[in-house]
Amino acid sequence: MGIKRYVVIMAGGVGSRFWPSSTEEKPKQFLDILGVGKSLLRITYERALKITSSGNVIVITNKVYYALVKQEIPELEDENILCEPSRNNTAPSVAYAALHIQARDKDASFVVLSSDHIILFEDKFTTAINQAFDFAEKYNALMTLGIQPSRPDTGYGYIELDDQNVDIKKVISFKEKPKLDIAAKYLDLGNYMWNAGIFIWKVECILEAFELYTEDILNHLNSNPSKYYTSLEQEYIDEVYPLTQKISVDYAIMEKATNVYCLPADIGWSDLGTWASLYSFSEKDMNNNVVHSDSNFLQDVKGCIIKVKEGKKAIIKGLNNCIVIDEDHALLIYPIENEQEIKEVVRKLS
Amino acid sequence: MGIKRYVVIMAGGVGSRFWPSSTEEKPKQFLDILGVGKSLLRITYERALKITSSGNVIVITNKVYYALVKQEIPELEDENILCEPSRNNTAPSVAYAALHIQARDKDASFVVLSSDHIILFEDKFTTAINQAFDFAEKYNALMTLGIQPSRPDTGYGYIELDDQNVDIKKVISFKEKPKLDIAAKYLDLGNYMWNAGIFIWKVECILEAFELYTEDILNHLNSNPSKYYTSLEQEYIDEVYPLTQKISVDYAIMEKATNVYCLPADIGWSDLGTWASLYSFSEKDMNNNVVHSDSNFLQDVKGCIIKVKEGKKAIIKGLNNCIVIDEDHALLIYPIENEQEIKEVVRKLS
Repeated sequence: MGIKRYVVIMAGGVGSRFWPSSTEEKPKQFLDILGVGKSLLRITYERALKITSSGNVIVITNKVYYALVKQEIPELEDENILCEPSRNNTAPSVAYAALHIQARDKDASFVVLSSDHIILFEDKFTTAINQAFDFAEKYNALMTLGIQPSRPDTGYGYIELDDQNVDIKKVISFKEKPKLDIAAKYLDLGNYMWNAGIFIWKVECILEAFELYTEDILNHLNSNPSKYYTSLEQEYIDEVYPLTQKISVDYAIMEKATNVYCLPADIGWSDLGTWASLYSFSEKDMNNNVVHSDSNFLQDVKGCIIKVKEGKKAIIKGLNNCIVIDEDHALLIYPIENEQEIKEVVRKLS
Repeated sequence: MGIKRYVVIMAGGVGSRFWPSSTEEKPKQFLDILGVGKSLLRITYERALKITSSGNVIVITNKVYYALVKQEIPELEDENILCEPSRNNTAPSVAYAALHIQARDKDASFVVLSSDHIILFEDKFTTAINQAFDFAEKYNALMTLGIQPSRPDTGYGYIELDDQNVDIKKVISFKEKPKLDIAAKYLDLGNYMWNAGIFIWKVECILEAFELYTEDILNHLNSNPSKYYTSLEQEYIDEVYPLTQKISVDYAIMEKATNVYCLPADIGWSDLGTWASLYSFSEKDMNNNVVHSDSNFLQDVKGCIIKVKEGKKAIIKGLNNCIVIDEDHALLIYPIENEQEIKEVVRKLS
C-alpha cells in the first residue's frame, strides 16, 4: 500500500446547457438541479468521501467560482481548492492537480471526477473506483471507467475496447462523438463504452504521460516545481497557467498513450447534458411531470419539467412535454423535444 | 357659473382579478397593465386634468395605498388624497368625498371615476363629462354615463333608460349583472346601457340623496362636519369611517333616487375586468400576441398574453391562446378561455 488516494473534482465548467437555470455566473455544478436539496458539486463531494478522506479531496475550479465552492463545501480546506486563472480545457487542469498532489505526496494516485454528473449506483461506483485504483497502481496504467451504452447516443465520446474476457480491458482507441449510424454500429459491436471522463492513475504515471505526449503543458506548469504546496503556488499558477495549451486530457493524453485501460462499470451514470436527461433521472409525479416548486396547481399538464423559484407558486393548465424554467433573468417555456435549439436561441438573444 | 368642478378618482380597490400581476399589496390600478409605461391610476389622473385643474383632482383610496398613490402621482398635494381606514364599499367613499369637497367649496360638483378602467376616446369622454356636468348643475340631477353595449355581457350592471328622443335620458331602473338570456334581451331592446360607475353631481345634490336614502352613513361621517378640510380630518375619519354601512353607491342611492339621468356615451370604455378584455384592448404583434417583455424569442406562439418582469428574457415555443404572467410570487400559464377558473385556483392555493 502506502499509496495515498486522492479525488480531484473538476468544477470549472461554465455550464452552457441548462439555461436559464445554469449561467456562467453560477453554472450547473453549483445548482440543486435535481431538486434534492444539494448541489451537484455537493453530491459529488459526498460521493468522494466514500473513496478517500476529506483531506484528500481536491476541487479544481476557475478562480471566479472559489466563493461558490466554499459555499457548497464550507468544510473544505483552502489548500484543497485549486484555482485556475483561465479556462484552458481539461489537460492543464489535470496536470496542475497532478503537480500539486505530487508536492504533497510523491507516491500518490488520484481519480478525476466531474462535478456536474450524476451516478445513481454509488456502491457499484465505489467498488469500481477501488478496483481501478488497484489496477492503476499495480500496473502503472492510465485507467478510465467505461459506461455500457444503453442507446446510440451521439452526444458522448466512445472508448473502443480490446475484446478480452477480463474485467479490465485494454483500450484500443478513443472515438469522438459519432454520427447516429456509427453510434448504432458501436452499440451492435458491444465493445464500445461511453467515455464518462472518469480517470484513475498514479501521479507519477500521468505526469510521465504529459512529458511524453504534450510536453508544452509541463514546460509551463512545471517550470518551477518548488512553488507547489507553498504560499506562492497561486501567484505562480496565475503567471504560468494561462500560457498552457488549451486542450482536453482525452485528446492530449488518452488518445495517444499506450498504457490505457478501461473498467466497464454499470454505475447509473449521466452527464446530465440535457433537460431530457435530467427529466429521465428525476422523480416524476403521477402525470409524469418533474416539478420543483413549493406550491403549485397543475391541470392537464403531462410530461413536463417545471421549475420555479423557492416560495413561488406555479399555476399551469394545458401543457404537455414542455420545459418550464423560471429564473430571475429569464422564463423558458419550450418543448422538450426541441431543447437542442435553446442554446442557439439564447446565443442570438444575448 | 361659479360652480367648481372636481374629479374624484376611486383608487381603493383590491384588484382580486389579474392575479398574479395584481395583488392586494399592489392592485391593478397601480400597475402598468397595458404596458404603455404608465399605471392605470396615472392614466386616469392625466385624463382628469382634461376636465379640471390639478388642485381639484381628489384621489380617494385605502390608507395602505397612500404611498402607491404618491408614487404614481407625486405632484398630487396631500390634501387631495383622502385615506379610508377600512374597506366599506363605494357609498361611504362617495359620501366622504362629498363632505370633504363641501368643506372646501360649498358650491361644487364632482365626477366619480374608477382608477382602473380604460377609456379609449378621451375627447368624446371629456365632451360627455362636461355635458353631464352642465345638466347636473342646471337640473340638480344625479348623472351617470351609460355605455352602449356591444355584446350581451353578463359581467356588467345595466341601466334601463326612458325612451325619449333626447341626449340625456331619465333612468327607469338599475339592473344587477344579468343572466345571458336577459342580457341578450337588453341588447335587443336598445334602451339598456352598461353601468360604468361614472357619476356626476353637485355636492349638495348627492348629500341630499344620502340624507334621503341612507341616513346611516351621514350620521357617522357628518357627526362633526367642522373636522373636514382641517388637520383633524384624518383622525376623525379614522374614528367614524369604519362605522358606516358597507354598501355600494349604486345600491344605496342610484337605485332609489328619482332624479337620476343618464348620458349614453361612446367613449371606448372597459373595466378591464378580465385578461381577455386586457387582450382585446392591447396592441398585438403579427401573431396576435400581446407581449410585455424587453427581450423575447417566440416561435409558434399565437394569441397569447405574455408578461415578464423588466429586463427578463422570455423564450417560448409552441403555445396558443394562453396567458403567461410571471411575477415574483407566481408563474401563471393558463388558457385564456379558462381564465374565470384562475381566481378559484388562487383562492385554494392561498
